[in-house]
Amino acid sequence: MAQETQFVLSSFSFLIWGVLIMWMCAGFTMLESGSVRTKNASVICLKNVGLYAIAGLMFYLIGYNLMYTGVDDLIGSFRLSYGTSEAEKALLAGDGGSVAEVVGNGNSVMSDWFFQMVFVATTASIVSGTLAERVRLWSFFVFVAVLTGFIYPVIGAWTWGGGWLDQMGFQDFAGSTIVHSTGGWAALAGAMIVGARQGKYREDGSVKFTPPSNVPVVTLGVFILWMGWFAFNGGSQLALSGVVDAVAVSNILVNTNLAACGGFIAAIALSRPIFGRIDLMASLNGAIAGLVSITAGPDIVDHYWAIIIGAVGGVICSLGMKTLEQMRVDDVVGAVSAHLFAGIWGTLAVCIAAGGNLLVQIVGILAIGAFVFSASMLVWLAIKQIMGVRVTLDVERHGQDVAELGIEAYPEFVVLQDPDL
Amino acid sequence: MAQETQFVLSSFSFLIWGVLIMWMCAGFTMLESGSVRTKNASVICLKNVGLYAIAGLMFYLIGYNLMYTGVDDLIGSFRLSYGTSEAEKALLAGDGGSVAEVVGNGNSVMSDWFFQMVFVATTASIVSGTLAERVRLWSFFVFVAVLTGFIYPVIGAWTWGGGWLDQMGFQDFAGSTIVHSTGGWAALAGAMIVGARQGKYREDGSVKFTPPSNVPVVTLGVFILWMGWFAFNGGSQLALSGVVDAVAVSNILVNTNLAACGGFIAAIALSRPIFGRIDLMASLNGAIAGLVSITAGPDIVDHYWAIIIGAVGGVICSLGMKTLEQMRVDDVVGAVSAHLFAGIWGTLAVCIAAGGNLLVQIVGILAIGAFVFSASMLVWLAIKQIMGVRVTLDVERHGQDVAELGIEAYPEFVVLQDPDL
Amino acid sequence: MAQETQFVLSSFSFLIWGVLIMWMCAGFTMLESGSVRTKNASVICLKNVGLYAIAGLMFYLIGYNLMYTGVDDLIGSFRLSYGTSEAEKALLAGDGGSVAEVVGNGNSVMSDWFFQMVFVATTASIVSGTLAERVRLWSFFVFVAVLTGFIYPVIGAWTWGGGWLDQMGFQDFAGSTIVHSTGGWAALAGAMIVGARQGKYREDGSVKFTPPSNVPVVTLGVFILWMGWFAFNGGSQLALSGVVDAVAVSNILVNTNLAACGGFIAAIALSRPIFGRIDLMASLNGAIAGLVSITAGPDIVDHYWAIIIGAVGGVICSLGMKTLEQMRVDDVVGAVSAHLFAGIWGTLAVCIAAGGNLLVQIVGILAIGAFVFSASMLVWLAIKQIMGVRVTLDVERHGQDVAELGIEAYPEFVVLQDPDL
Repeated sequence: MAQETQFVLSSFSFLIWGVLIMWMCAGFTMLESGSVRTKNASVICLKNVGLYAIAGLMFYLIGYNLMYTGVDDLIGSFRLSYGTSEAEKALLAGDGGSVAEVVGNGNSVMSDWFFQMVFVATTASIVSGTLAERVRLWSFFVFVAVLTGFIYPVIGAWTWGGGWLDQMGFQDFAGSTIVHSTGGWAALAGAMIVGARQGKYREDGSVKFTPPSNVPVVTLGVFILWMGWFAFNGGSQLALSGVVDAVAVSNILVNTNLAACGGFIAAIALSRPIFGRIDLMASLNGAIAGLVSITAGPDIVDHYWAIIIGAVGGVICSLGMKTLEQMRVDDVVGAVSAHLFAGIWGTLAVCIAAGGNLLVQIVGILAIGAFVFSASMLVWLAIKQIMGVRVTLDVERHGQDVAELGIEAYPEFVVLQDPDL
Repeated sequence: MAQETQFVLSSFSFLIWGVLIMWMCAGFTMLESGSVRTKNASVICLKNVGLYAIAGLMFYLIGYNLMYTGVDDLIGSFRLSYGTSEAEKALLAGDGGSVAEVVGNGNSVMSDWFFQMVFVATTASIVSGTLAERVRLWSFFVFVAVLTGFIYPVIGAWTWGGGWLDQMGFQDFAGSTIVHSTGGWAALAGAMIVGARQGKYREDGSVKFTPPSNVPVVTLGVFILWMGWFAFNGGSQLALSGVVDAVAVSNILVNTNLAACGGFIAAIALSRPIFGRIDLMASLNGAIAGLVSITAGPDIVDHYWAIIIGAVGGVICSLGMKTLEQMRVDDVVGAVSAHLFAGIWGTLAVCIAAGGNLLVQIVGILAIGAFVFSASMLVWLAIKQIMGVRVTLDVERHGQDVAELGIEAYPEFVVLQDPDL
Repeated sequence: MAQETQFVLSSFSFLIWGVLIMWMCAGFTMLESGSVRTKNASVICLKNVGLYAIAGLMFYLIGYNLMYTGVDDLIGSFRLSYGTSEAEKALLAGDGGSVAEVVGNGNSVMSDWFFQMVFVATTASIVSGTLAERVRLWSFFVFVAVLTGFIYPVIGAWTWGGGWLDQMGFQDFAGSTIVHSTGGWAALAGAMIVGARQGKYREDGSVKFTPPSNVPVVTLGVFILWMGWFAFNGGSQLALSGVVDAVAVSNILVNTNLAACGGFIAAIALSRPIFGRIDLMASLNGAIAGLVSITAGPDIVDHYWAIIIGAVGGVICSLGMKTLEQMRVDDVVGAVSAHLFAGIWGTLAVCIAAGGNLLVQIVGILAIGAFVFSASMLVWLAIKQIMGVRVTLDVERHGQDVAELGIEAYPEFVVLQDPDL
């Protein structure tokens, strides 16, 4: 293949995959807005559009350079605004002399920026689901700015940016740990600082059942995520420059799908023993957990391992949801179970069929977990001190939609009042 | 074009088209969950996610080999687990010597597997719509496993796999019969065994009007299907290896769109004479029927024929919906009309402008119809014997959501109770 | 790169981008059906599917030739049915001799047709939102036929078709004016002829608050539009024939995203001063306005300008919504503000960083505005004379869904009756 053709195909595929990953934000939004109670559905929508906008700006202004530009061991450079390469600028301005330099990069630097940017947004999306229904809108936005501008880029520098974990041989193909566990740790820290929703855990030890308010919308969200995941994992091959890439990406998409199938089937099959009924949310989360699980090593060639890894992920997610509930950690959509727990499993599972070193994987999981969790705790605590993290009891009662936005998500529909509040 | 470039483009386009066809599952889900009554909307969501997961596993474990590997006249081979070709495995393992063999195949075998797998799921999606609101969850899943693991692959072996119908010259470019009629026959058999919804056909001969419960969600589903159909038909060119393919695929997308436009316009224009009012569901189904109709021969070069074929399909669908209702066959979403009736028409229409042989087309339609319908009948009857196919009257009254899943699709919304039940 | 490879890539990218732009129709549909009151949600869905079908047929039958075939200064040719080029027909029929001619065009003519067709539909989508809840279904369809078959193609001939504005140097990369302002002017003319919704502007000077009836669906629509816009702007590079195109498209996608981020952030930040609260609709429209604003010049290389241009667009949209309300022009979804006002700004903004000539841009804006607005006025007035444009007061009270379609969008849900009607 001509080098020029390789360049065009790699850049174009980055863009197409990137568009599909951006679409995952809509998936998270639907999953979350259908999962919360109707009185908080507008705010969660606004949070999700907002987090994508904030992530896009923060990653442009600070994040990308911190993650990828001149990384030594720990971080890249603090430099405002990532920009098109000078060679690409010259080429667009008509200077044909810069073609060789541009092509030498393998793909357009801006196509890479676009692809990396949509990954950041995914991390933030995970947080919004867990903390729904009680975290304040602006407090959440501030956290997102820090997460996408600093916390995630630092982790990214350690790994994909070529830092110390990468040098050690840490393997995380598309981000079971780097993206999903990072989001999960940040969400878990938030859940601990913000606390459970009013009335979720009753004094008598029982747990209030808070089913999704709009199941078709939740299901749509799951389909969008499943769809986008093909891009998430397939695009992480990071090139489409020849036969090897084409075969590798094809293989990745097949594994990604099989893992999701395995996760769903395992979760629905075990939902009666675990939850006492066919649990819709646990089954759907099982598919997501299957996807998260295969994300660290979707490039394995033995497809049956993808099914098994996904299935185990689905079970871990179900058990995680059950456990967190018993620990009285309130995770509205089960994001910590699906993204953090299954993400840890997926990162370990790389040792089964994708050649990962168990010790290195554990070091990576622990180091990233420790950093993200403690950094997130600090940020959440700081936000709590400065502006508060949680809406008032009164706002929680009436819903964030009316209180923070002055509208309802479904203003014409007659909805039941929550008898507990 | 370099052979390597052809390989990369064909594989990549298989993947992109495949992702968009997978997305059609979300389209069916939205169409169906918006069409059923609210009390059954969660179960239909779960059925649709489940059927995609089951189809993906069954086609991997059994279906693909049965359809494509070593097909003589009737079936391929019974061999567990389709796998990456040894040459592709070697290539991914770093053995450059296998490139020639890999490239010789024209595209990555796993990209082809992915593309074929999403087709299977479409077939199963058709069934869930027709049987909504009364078929039992697990009984449906068992049928899906048989349909996607055996029935569809056998049909596929006869045709796309190179079996007897293919040798005879049967033409069905993207599956008006192979995919859509197959789904329609399976659904029709199911509708006959499972029976109509309680109260749908009253003793006095009148028919209970059961409008969609959530029209925006239905409409979203139609848009998703329309979108995905570009991939469904365009991808069925099965290659993007040069100028001819690029022109052919472009032509196919234009025809696909024009046929859908024709189907919609014809259906809405005739909805007053046929239904006595502007019928939203019939109009939307008209677009789908237009798409189904052009699916057997989207490669025609006279675009006006695409409009006409689609328009006739739209009319056939409307008349079919009316007729089935009069015959007291209960098809919740009109899938038999849109997929089976329009599919038959589309397969015949190949003789108009795409060079099909009328006799051969009829043989194909009849043979596939006879096999799928009778095999489906047997499977449905067996399931009925062993585990039952239908929920109890009581479950039907209260809705499958509460009875089978213990949740409601819209738990906070006040919904009207059906006065008949 | 081989010329053949260039041809395949340009054609394929036209198709992929085209599919994503078609998807924007679903975005408009969701945005609009979630914005209207529940009693009009079905009709707006049907209008949107219908307008896409009508646009597709009209552009095929008349529009494309009028816009692109043999354009002198003002219009192309009145010739029924655009068709595949003879060379492409010959190639598909197996005549290899026509390859050189086909390849010489740079891309498949039908891939270009497909791409241009989905643009037309966008224009019509803008109109349906503004006029929702009171324009008659068939009157709207007649207007759409004229808009997509004549008005838009004439504007298109002046500009992208190579007519007088193009010769003068008017710059509008992907259609801030050509698509979005055109839709906005047509909508504004319609709003003036059709009038405000009953009860929207009260005699005491106060304005009735009509919040969206289904916020998650509105949000979904915004995400779909944002997603499709990458294709809308990126595809407008009109080729993927080498390194320059790949870099240019990558750059365009980054700018498109940054502008939307800027629009959203600016709108939400200023929503309290402008609207007295965090306004969800204004914030979401801010993102859309940011996208519209960058559409005329997404090919700039200084990304920070994209943020600023988008942010200004977001503010203009918010102020426009406020102003139109004060002027008692009833625009249900804010489409005039987001598409027309931000479109004008975007077309002027081309002079900042993309080298546009201010005078020429103003001439283009005025000429297109004058033509589209007056032509639309004439058409709306003619429709008013012949068949009426507005539903009766009674229909408006009970909703178009029940009155025009005989169904409700959410028939099982208990909805509040509007106390004013």
